[in-house]
Amino acid sequence: MHLSHNSVKELPSRKRAQLINSIGGLKSANLIGSISKSGQTNLAIFNSVMHIGSHPALLGFILRPTTVERHTYENIFETNVFTINHIHPKMIAQAHQTSAKYEKSISEFEVVNLEKEFLDDFKAPFVKTSPIKIACEYQNEYKIQENACRLIIGKITDIYFDEGIQNLDGFVDLTKSESVGCIGTDAYFKATILNRFEYAEVGKELNSKS
Amino acid sequence: MHLSHNSVKELPSRKRAQLINSIGGLKSANLIGSISKSGQTNLAIFNSVMHIGSHPALLGFILRPTTVERHTYENIFETNVFTINHIHPKMIAQAHQTSAKYEKSISEFEVVNLEKEFLDDFKAPFVKTSPIKIACEYQNEYKIQENACRLIIGKITDIYFDEGIQNLDGFVDLTKSESVGCIGTDAYFKATILNRFEYAEVGKELNSKS
Repeated sequence: MHLSHNSVKELPSRKRAQLINSIGGLKSANLIGSISKSGQTNLAIFNSVMHIGSHPALLGFILRPTTVERHTYENIFETNVFTINHIHPKMIAQAHQTSAKYEKSISEFEVVNLEKEFLDDFKAPFVKTSPIKIACEYQNEYKIQENACRLIIGKITDIYFDEGIQNLDGFVDLTKSESVGCIGTDAYFKATILNRFEYAEVGKELNSKS
Repeated sequence: MHLSHNSVKELPSRKRAQLINSIGGLKSANLIGSISKSGQTNLAIFNSVMHIGSHPALLGFILRPTTVERHTYENIFETNVFTINHIHPKMIAQAHQTSAKYEKSISEFEVVNLEKEFLDDFKAPFVKTSPIKIACEYQNEYKIQENACRLIIGKITDIYFDEGIQNLDGFVDLTKSESVGCIGTDAYFKATILNRFEYAEVGKELNSKS
């Protein structure tokens, strides 16, 4: 099947959104927790959390110009901090429900029934049952002129997870944490590792990592 | 286990890279094909292809400041086009091997033995055996000041895939295409869908998509 630029443009908007949201590849799924200056908590699902760099340790995510996710942005603007929480298979319905357009005075933690917790004096709330929790400080943002989205950059300040999911070389095995991912905007998947390889070098046979 | 900002900073650099590369969540894995003005082809693996917007249809990816991936950048700079190719489980060793630092005069298509193909007069090469192939035109880039990476934005011009992997609502089922993803920099995984949900609304029970 071949879809040209023009045939994509002429699709009904929902069908186009489903197509383009899924076509780029498998995506991460995370719950971002935040808090306003006055103490109102917010929780929202994002499928765009990405690695930016290891030194300094930076993550990024794409923030849409509209929809409920603006609460996250307003809170980060006010308090400078947010949390990134991995989603366990048992949490996917609740995680997806955070994408409904709740008013700002309503905390998604309560309405979807995901318990919040505060760790080590960090101001933003974490999801208690999340297998991997990351505290971030707002670092910078880049406005994408093409569609008014923003790439938000966060500096990792703290990471929480069960020791047993990390290999000796530092690799965190996200199949052991059972972290789920997302296809498009509404399908959640689990991952099974096919193989892990050594660092690839020119002229050297590639081996699996033992 | 709690890792603070300082304990992350003090890790040996490879261990820190393994940790931070894997901690953000499951990632996409794609082969980006490109071609220089003089016709030299290049193929490189990226685990940062992301959805930017559906209308206009835009994808993005993060380009590191160093490493072999500069060939991709130089080619895009010269010819303005590139292809994004999903990775099938049968291709993962070859795909990973493209991350070795080959000289520019060497085409990864040939050295890792992934056949290239040209479709509908598009200038950049596709991976013949890839289950989903996307033609992109360079649209813009944003330099991330924090670590000199670049967010490259591409406009989708053409999409190729087998009709059978798309649902009636437009959703492309990346488990049917068997598209693989990546954890960290070296682990490849396959996806199994747990559930697909309806659009979430306030005060309405969330249902699975039938």
